[in-house]
Amino acid sequence: MVSFADQLTVPTLMLDERRCRRNIERMAQKAQRSGVRFRPHFKTHQSAAVGAWFREVGVEAITASSLRMAEYFADDGWRDITVAFPVNIREIERINQLAARITLGLIVDSVESAELIAARLTHSVNVWIEVDTGDQRSGVDWNDGAVAVQIAHTLRASPLITLSGLLTHAGRSYTKRSPEDMRAVYGETVARLTALRGVLSAAGYSSLALSLGDTPCCSLVDDFSAADEIRPGNFVYYDLTQAVIGSCAMNDIAVAVACPVVSKNAERGQVVVYGGAVHLSKDTVVDGDGRTIYGLVSRLTLDDPGAGWGAPLANTYVRSLSQEHGVLQTDTATLASLKVGDVLAILPVHSCLTADLLKQCLTLGGETLPMLHLDHV
Amino acid sequence: MVSFADQLTVPTLMLDERRCRRNIERMAQKAQRSGVRFRPHFKTHQSAAVGAWFREVGVEAITASSLRMAEYFADDGWRDITVAFPVNIREIERINQLAARITLGLIVDSVESAELIAARLTHSVNVWIEVDTGDQRSGVDWNDGAVAVQIAHTLRASPLITLSGLLTHAGRSYTKRSPEDMRAVYGETVARLTALRGVLSAAGYSSLALSLGDTPCCSLVDDFSAADEIRPGNFVYYDLTQAVIGSCAMNDIAVAVACPVVSKNAERGQVVVYGGAVHLSKDTVVDGDGRTIYGLVSRLTLDDPGAGWGAPLANTYVRSLSQEHGVLQTDTATLASLKVGDVLAILPVHSCLTADLLKQCLTLGGETLPMLHLDHV
Repeated sequence: MVSFADQLTVPTLMLDERRCRRNIERMAQKAQRSGVRFRPHFKTHQSAAVGAWFREVGVEAITASSLRMAEYFADDGWRDITVAFPVNIREIERINQLAARITLGLIVDSVESAELIAARLTHSVNVWIEVDTGDQRSGVDWNDGAVAVQIAHTLRASPLITLSGLLTHAGRSYTKRSPEDMRAVYGETVARLTALRGVLSAAGYSSLALSLGDTPCCSLVDDFSAADEIRPGNFVYYDLTQAVIGSCAMNDIAVAVACPVVSKNAERGQVVVYGGAVHLSKDTVVDGDGRTIYGLVSRLTLDDPGAGWGAPLANTYVRSLSQEHGVLQTDTATLASLKVGDVLAILPVHSCLTADLLKQCLTLGGETLPMLHLDHV
Repeated sequence: MVSFADQLTVPTLMLDERRCRRNIERMAQKAQRSGVRFRPHFKTHQSAAVGAWFREVGVEAITASSLRMAEYFADDGWRDITVAFPVNIREIERINQLAARITLGLIVDSVESAELIAARLTHSVNVWIEVDTGDQRSGVDWNDGAVAVQIAHTLRASPLITLSGLLTHAGRSYTKRSPEDMRAVYGETVARLTALRGVLSAAGYSSLALSLGDTPCCSLVDDFSAADEIRPGNFVYYDLTQAVIGSCAMNDIAVAVACPVVSKNAERGQVVVYGGAVHLSKDTVVDGDGRTIYGLVSRLTLDDPGAGWGAPLANTYVRSLSQEHGVLQTDTATLASLKVGDVLAILPVHSCLTADLLKQCLTLGGETLPMLHLDHV
């Protein structure tokens, strides 16, 4: 049998199943206590195996960020999937094929998109109007009831469309640094969605559901009862960004990238690992010390893989990345303790992008979990 | 037959074969005129099909950035490959397997690494001492002849090792903004390698070759005769970073990402395309106007795909990226001219990372070229 250490020859996404399951259970319980549907976003893990852990806690409906991802999970038996990205009309044929197989949710944010899908659907779908509750990315402005009503009118023209409700992603929570501020974002988001729902109700569209839920807000809010469903995704793994902004503890982070040490420079206090932009992504976060970092670094106990990785090493961070190189800045004692050929665990800044790059993950028990591949077309 | 337009339903790496072949021919001719070996780095395109275009201009030796990439090209018939990354001793078994099949070049930058490979090789390899000529990433300091000699002594202990020479990557050229400054980096790099070669020669290591060549320097220098081989890679496609720093013209860029328009906001002058961090990468560049951008935007003529994409649109750039969303900032006239469902061409900031993410590319002739996949293990 290949030992855990022998499996770590190249940059490898390691998954601490215990932490991951704990993250899943905690969020599922919160949703249940609030009486809202838990429709987790699967864009972070992109793994049928991790999806099965959600099934174990009763999840039946999920969110995907692309049609291909929705197809992958449909193939795995998921029967209720919302693609939470403005509908891409160029994929209409695949949309129709998927809509024939499952309960498919789409989102639209313009009359133009609504007209296009109303004209070209051949199977039933649920449609959500995407609302911009303050993030200025996509979505109808929450304050622009006239456009929302016009979209609803347009969608009504198609007997294949059920208008499910209003959906938003309050990504501005990521700019906050205190639980109070994040809860305030949540409150504002709910209030804005509720106001717009009132306008639609007055126009004859009643019983619209409200769907929201980014990881920071969902981690820090306990009562979601004003909403109908929550869709957090990143919480399944969390990452350094979430730890820095305060939506998780460092030991909630369920993934780390095993990176072999290949070079050391004692004078500069630097270590080069095999693990670069094609493994970790170039996303950065500004840590508590004001440093822009590409990751933090922990030790691994290769003889006892179940123990996972330790707390981040003091005075140590990923300073820069090139395609395959990761340059760590560290202190004299840590550097002296490391040998070429050792394996370090890098805590990722943004686990969604890191998992997407590495395409599979290895549990601490030594099991490789498959993920959505780009060649699933 | 599926039309070119119908092939562009999701973010797709488009390759302008004419530009790409022109980039290849120009660099091959420069190397030939200088009488140096052209050992192009294949980490940017990662494609056997593009590799074949290099064969057509007489290239026989290549560079790869990982062992897996080297295996992929070995499977495609390449017989002389240098892995230009500090040797990762944890992959020694695969190194030995590959060394049994081809002429394999490795690089080392420490006595520690030299000892490890000298002890564990079972097949012949060429080894280059990696030199830090001023970039402070990996490599022996060019000024530290004693360490370089010690490495050479260590390598000599193994009859399976041929010490080929000194190798460097002068990535600091990317911080320069004028041809003069880049040529100065090249001159400095050659001088430093030459000085270190002198030290090794005095210690009894003669006939060592010098290998260098990042894309900026190789694009702006004409005479490489002081070196023995050049290893540029990015030039095969170029990208916005190269255009901004002045090592290529905008119309040398041979790849762009086709991205469907999914949302528009007239008030903010913004367009959302399907094309995010998992397609383009989060790499940025500061353009001539001081803006930090994730890409520039061109129009595509879908009816005449051979025409490729146009010059970048004025007043338009990729302002932000999330996992699947790209937010473009543009002007009123451009926004008014765009419809949901249109396809725009995004010029990438860093083509190596974008190609790595998209994993295959589509020529303007409608042919899909396969690339190295992560499941090639």
